[in-house]
Amino acid sequence: MTFPRPITDHSRLSINTATTRAQWKLAEAIDGYARAGVKGISPWRDQIAEMGLANAAKAIRDADLHVTGVCRGGMFPWADAAGRAAMLEDNRRAIEEAATLEADCLVLVVGGLPAGSKDLAGAHAMVEEAIHTLLPEARTAGVSLAIEPLHPMYAADRACVNTMRHALDICEKMGDGIGVAVDVYHVWWDAELKNQIDRAGKDRLLAFHVCDWLVPTRDLLMDRGMMGDGVIDIPLIRGWVEAAGYDGFHEVEIFSELDWWKRPAEEVVETCKERSLSAV
Amino acid sequence: MTFPRPITDHSRLSINTATTRAQWKLAEAIDGYARAGVKGISPWRDQIAEMGLANAAKAIRDADLHVTGVCRGGMFPWADAAGRAAMLEDNRRAIEEAATLEADCLVLVVGGLPAGSKDLAGAHAMVEEAIHTLLPEARTAGVSLAIEPLHPMYAADRACVNTMRHALDICEKMGDGIGVAVDVYHVWWDAELKNQIDRAGKDRLLAFHVCDWLVPTRDLLMDRGMMGDGVIDIPLIRGWVEAAGYDGFHEVEIFSELDWWKRPAEEVVETCKERSLSAV
Repeated sequence: MTFPRPITDHSRLSINTATTRAQWKLAEAIDGYARAGVKGISPWRDQIAEMGLANAAKAIRDADLHVTGVCRGGMFPWADAAGRAAMLEDNRRAIEEAATLEADCLVLVVGGLPAGSKDLAGAHAMVEEAIHTLLPEARTAGVSLAIEPLHPMYAADRACVNTMRHALDICEKMGDGIGVAVDVYHVWWDAELKNQIDRAGKDRLLAFHVCDWLVPTRDLLMDRGMMGDGVIDIPLIRGWVEAAGYDGFHEVEIFSELDWWKRPAEEVVETCKERSLSAV
Repeated sequence: MTFPRPITDHSRLSINTATTRAQWKLAEAIDGYARAGVKGISPWRDQIAEMGLANAAKAIRDADLHVTGVCRGGMFPWADAAGRAAMLEDNRRAIEEAATLEADCLVLVVGGLPAGSKDLAGAHAMVEEAIHTLLPEARTAGVSLAIEPLHPMYAADRACVNTMRHALDICEKMGDGIGVAVDVYHVWWDAELKNQIDRAGKDRLLAFHVCDWLVPTRDLLMDRGMMGDGVIDIPLIRGWVEAAGYDGFHEVEIFSELDWWKRPAEEVVETCKERSLSAV
């Protein structure tokens, strides 16, 4: 077997609903993706809440879409006891939603520094404590937890786990039922990436997200590129995750207020389909 | 000895001329920093060229300023043979300038991907080849080379060495005469930072740069914060480098088109002095 495997159809293409968030509510995304022949979806929880969990689950099932992830659990570090309790409660709901939607995983964006804090090591400890608390409940619910290492430019305000190495260190402390979501946007720069993907192996590679890094990048959050428009060698990285045993979907997740969110959603979806053949 | 050591004066304060680049040419910066009682300076090469190397060297010597670094060598990855030759020639001039100015080190911003390339591993190899070529010449000139791992958000266009681990891996392949410049802005997020600073030790810790990470950060390049205005626990990191043996200057380097470059240079320098006592 040589990697990356040839991609000749859209049977492994999933779209994260963030990609068409500005244009489509969840019901429209479910319908639009399915109509375009996309086989997977990864919904955000605010959109699930707006549509209603039962309605969303039924519509996704009726559209024969596979749920490659629920976005997102996490945001673990807390400022006080009330914050900790609310965080745990919110993550328990997220686990329940992921179970109901039969998602491949619940994506964990682990959170950054609590407001006013500079204690990065303290935030790391809170992340581990929260996962240690929630993981047995996720196992009982049949939900895999996927730590998504986020790009280091989000360390302060979104996720203080920023490398595959750190995410896998946490996974290995925790045992079964937890792995990583590999998003090329967040980890492409890492000289250790191939080694850490090998280390993760099939059991811990729970999701593979694609988009591209634009040069220049005009905004820290809202200027992700369509696959092929930036500098990431996506087929190379896909080959690495496949060689390590990953055989799941390729999930497109593009935050782009500056470009793609301004275009018709149908055009975005068609471009995702084309590029999934030519640039993933 | 407990770390960080108390800072009670400005005897170890250096200012990188990028910090007042919009307001002062090099001659004015030399004069302005010295007049304010700052003891160190780190000039940029375009400013040295504008003033003339001999003039700059004399003015810095006359002002009794210590040169904590010359910014910058590097930009190693090349697109073709002519680009490689020009890169080596430029780095040879940079070594000569650092020698003439008796700088603690020549800071290496190693460069990103060549135009049109997605070959990150190839860029890494070019960085190593160029350093391997130049290091003997730097040793002969008595110039220490300092790889500055840049924040991963600069991997594509400025520096494809983005962690202390990667920089030190390269140093260890190369032997003596090369180390790292630790800039808190670039490395503060790294869960391995303390371990890698320990690994570097006194011989490889060639420079310590300070500024702060603002939340939110409004621009990838031009929105660095003044020490104390962001989320980096600078005294903690300073304690780590001191415990590892570093006893050099603290160099303030702030790129800030959005704020500090709009203020009077005297105010910027006074703020650097104040914050070096309260927030470094």
